[in-house]
Amino acid sequence: MNEQNINIDLKRINPYFGAAISVDCVVFGFDGTELKVLLMRCNMEPYVGLWSLIGDLLRVNEDLEGAAKRILKRRTGLDNVFMEQTKAFGSVDRHPLGRVITIAYYSLVKISEYELSNAPEYREAHWHNISEITELAFDHRDILDECLNLLRKHVKEAPVGFNLLPPKFTLPQLQNLYETILGKSLDKRNFRKKILKMKILKDIGETQQNVSHRPGKLYSFDEKRYESLRKDGFIFDLN
Amino acid sequence: MNEQNINIDLKRINPYFGAAISVDCVVFGFDGTELKVLLMRCNMEPYVGLWSLIGDLLRVNEDLEGAAKRILKRRTGLDNVFMEQTKAFGSVDRHPLGRVITIAYYSLVKISEYELSNAPEYREAHWHNISEITELAFDHRDILDECLNLLRKHVKEAPVGFNLLPPKFTLPQLQNLYETILGKSLDKRNFRKKILKMKILKDIGETQQNVSHRPGKLYSFDEKRYESLRKDGFIFDLN
Repeated sequence: MNEQNINIDLKRINPYFGAAISVDCVVFGFDGTELKVLLMRCNMEPYVGLWSLIGDLLRVNEDLEGAAKRILKRRTGLDNVFMEQTKAFGSVDRHPLGRVITIAYYSLVKISEYELSNAPEYREAHWHNISEITELAFDHRDILDECLNLLRKHVKEAPVGFNLLPPKFTLPQLQNLYETILGKSLDKRNFRKKILKMKILKDIGETQQNVSHRPGKLYSFDEKRYESLRKDGFIFDLN
Repeated sequence: MNEQNINIDLKRINPYFGAAISVDCVVFGFDGTELKVLLMRCNMEPYVGLWSLIGDLLRVNEDLEGAAKRILKRRTGLDNVFMEQTKAFGSVDRHPLGRVITIAYYSLVKISEYELSNAPEYREAHWHNISEITELAFDHRDILDECLNLLRKHVKEAPVGFNLLPPKFTLPQLQNLYETILGKSLDKRNFRKKILKMKILKDIGETQQNVSHRPGKLYSFDEKRYESLRKDGFIFDLN
């Protein structure tokens, strides 16, 4: 390409290079009863005071996944958690600062394992019951809904839900998680049959301690076994 | 927000507003034998002469889906086709003009229904057998692979594959499509049983014309019935 060509090209394309990219993380957690999402206080007009997803602008020198990890870690302290890109959102007027396309990620987190307030860029982040959320800043309500739909799909076709449970859990706890995410009750016998038939749970030979009801058997997710089954064509299916 | 605050904010964020967004469409087609993708000649250094996906930069005043439709129509003439957002790709050095994050869409097209060369911004677009593609411009090989993986997943969980077939087809043609997409042979009896059990195919009471083998019964996809079943909780499943 000679110099003239470069100039012509740059003149043609320059107006296109005025956008910013952001990453917004929808962080799901489960406290045994409610499905929750982690939100922080928005400090940008006209949304000051509203809650928003955990997000920030992409830096010049980082890729999307790197940005998602950096933002989550700096804002909340969460590190090394399940994270998956969901979708890009790019309505023309979605951001007050200018054209900002955001790439949404969703994360699944064991709530009790983290102390949020220790993060270096922590901004009043709290767990909110999803069922109680109404308004959010920007188009974050749409992003949350889209990620929630994806989560509902994923928990039926992959063993991602275990990221929301403690390492040891009972079958009623697992069923309760699924019922909470899917928003409907499931037949107990049928659920047990389906999940046990896949042979991806390990009976760890322990029972619950200090519970008022009859203590349940504790299981863990056997990830090694799942990966080995998967190589042989096994398909996780809770549909 | 007072004026000083605005200035400080803009100074802080300005360096972030130097990116461009593009949309790249992975357009799949099926000619009865091979799974194909529509590619156009790249005219940008250092990729001049290589093939690329159907793409262009996002304009200031359009949203992502609008851009995807505009680009596909102007470049190829394809209009009103199945289209779904796949993923954002944003490696730091993926584009020679600067920071360009691209949003990938995939489309499914009945090849025979379109005359590509009539498009206003047509640039030597051709159908390529996916099995024969090696190098592509930019990171388009990665994008193609990601969309192909998604297609393989989608055809098993939703009736999207019918978008690649003529409106009337035989069961062997349908099986052939699935085998080509999935890259493996399927048991004929099992495939028929699964697909017929879902009751989403309509026997249209015709058979093939002008074929050298025994003419097969022709079916069509009963979209209305599928949508009504779906409302009642029916799940398409060819796993």
